[in-house]
Amino acid sequence: MQNDRDVLVHEVGPRDGLQSIQTIFPTEAKMDWIRQLACAGVPQIQVGSFVPPKNLPQMADSAEVVRQSVDIPGLTVSALVPNLRGAENGMAAGAHQIGVVISVSEAHNMSNVKRSVAESLEGFSKIVEYRDSNEEYKDIVISGGLATSFGCTIDGKVAVADVMRVAEEYLKRGADRISVADTVGHANPKQVKNLFDELYQTVGKEVAIGAHFHDTRGLGLANAFAALEAGVRELDSCLGGLGGCPYAPGATGNIVTEDLVFMLEAMGMRTGVDLDGLLEAREIMEQQLQDEPTHGNFITAGRPLGFEPATAVV
Amino acid sequence: MQNDRDVLVHEVGPRDGLQSIQTIFPTEAKMDWIRQLACAGVPQIQVGSFVPPKNLPQMADSAEVVRQSVDIPGLTVSALVPNLRGAENGMAAGAHQIGVVISVSEAHNMSNVKRSVAESLEGFSKIVEYRDSNEEYKDIVISGGLATSFGCTIDGKVAVADVMRVAEEYLKRGADRISVADTVGHANPKQVKNLFDELYQTVGKEVAIGAHFHDTRGLGLANAFAALEAGVRELDSCLGGLGGCPYAPGATGNIVTEDLVFMLEAMGMRTGVDLDGLLEAREIMEQQLQDEPTHGNFITAGRPLGFEPATAVV
Repeated sequence: MQNDRDVLVHEVGPRDGLQSIQTIFPTEAKMDWIRQLACAGVPQIQVGSFVPPKNLPQMADSAEVVRQSVDIPGLTVSALVPNLRGAENGMAAGAHQIGVVISVSEAHNMSNVKRSVAESLEGFSKIVEYRDSNEEYKDIVISGGLATSFGCTIDGKVAVADVMRVAEEYLKRGADRISVADTVGHANPKQVKNLFDELYQTVGKEVAIGAHFHDTRGLGLANAFAALEAGVRELDSCLGGLGGCPYAPGATGNIVTEDLVFMLEAMGMRTGVDLDGLLEAREIMEQQLQDEPTHGNFITAGRPLGFEPATAVV
Repeated sequence: MQNDRDVLVHEVGPRDGLQSIQTIFPTEAKMDWIRQLACAGVPQIQVGSFVPPKNLPQMADSAEVVRQSVDIPGLTVSALVPNLRGAENGMAAGAHQIGVVISVSEAHNMSNVKRSVAESLEGFSKIVEYRDSNEEYKDIVISGGLATSFGCTIDGKVAVADVMRVAEEYLKRGADRISVADTVGHANPKQVKNLFDELYQTVGKEVAIGAHFHDTRGLGLANAFAALEAGVRELDSCLGGLGGCPYAPGATGNIVTEDLVFMLEAMGMRTGVDLDGLLEAREIMEQQLQDEPTHGNFITAGRPLGFEPATAVV
């Protein structure tokens, strides 16, 4: 399957979506949702976050969710971790990919995790060393996330040179891939294209680079297209755009998975994902929601007449 | 002002927005809305459509709206016409630009206006001849619109060669500009870029080409960005995304003006439009609406910290 895919869609709803809303999904409901996502062909899902439960009670069952998810055939299971303790727990649970996030903006990183960027990078090195010192974990992929790469709610503009510096530090310290995030929905497509162009020039075309966009100001899919134009082939998204900004009621969270998959498939880029299956997963997810809104246009408009997805229907 | 503008934003709400909803705006409300749009710096507005009032009662006062709109300093006033009779009325009312629309899809054109594409092109020639035979109308711009250029609800796929053929016919018959429309929201950004690339190769870079997108499947701004990448510098949009598809409740209509302007200004492309002024115009518009929803993300999220519009604040 992987060889027949042009773009990897990385569903982050069970982590980024759920951590932004009030409703706490029972473990079984998370698993029904995750299983249907995998059944629809979603190749990689971020199923949880190894943070203290008092901070994010929605994520308290992440170890159990990882343990059950890794039994789903063909699915790559990723989990977010804030520090070495979280990484130890995530790896012990069996996650295939461990994601670490550092804000490129010093002020945002300090506000978020009470550490400087340099301190967070030191913490990242410890996670890589821990992985490398445990033979059983040698196949675990460690991803370095660059939050606030396109702007920051505290600092405003973020210098491209700072993004390059943190990206290079990640790779120097052993990151297997990096992920560039528009954490707060500041990016515009021209900025996206320019940043990824420069990033590939800086770190080389062979580095796996993902992109993470929010649709806060409606530019999410335009930014995704710009990233694709620059050569990015791994995109985070969230079914139904679950989530959103606490300070902006009505604003959507991550880009909407089903709209993204529709765009990719319409453009002839194979995702391996079936749109009908995604909508079934969306129904499962929506059954758990209380007052939280979902987003997206494909859900209403459906396929255009004559639409032929790039992914062969099996 | 015009010389300091990089992209022309053509507001079509008073025509495309209003014709898609039930509520009929009183003439004075249309004028308050149009005046505030112009005050915000919107350079061109499609204020009405010269169709029989029994077909579109929302457009019954178009002659009066055009007459009042042409008195607004600096505003280019455009109107849509279905045939020579409509063009005569639109020109008599004083419209600066007359827009004609032909569906590239034969089936759609037949369903829409009961004429073949060839017959519609003959009708277009008569409009140009009428303009040219009246010295007082010599400055009126005639625009040829290509509906269903990216797909059709009846025919499904539409051949790029057919788009090229109708575009060339328009120009041969005296169109001053052409406008390529994704009438039913079928387009994807790759298709958009390819089509405009081919169109510029076919008709030449010097021809003024506009683009008209709907956000039916959430790809509207991605498509707009793709058109900009191909060199398009005139984009239709609609304040608050007013409108939508009768068959798809909740789906938006045209791309949202304020989101488009935010995207353009963030990318460093000057529109001459002030975002705060646009939101004031949106309020005026919304006061008239009954149950019709409006759309857009900028209205909720506002400017990101550190945002500097390309258009100098005067």
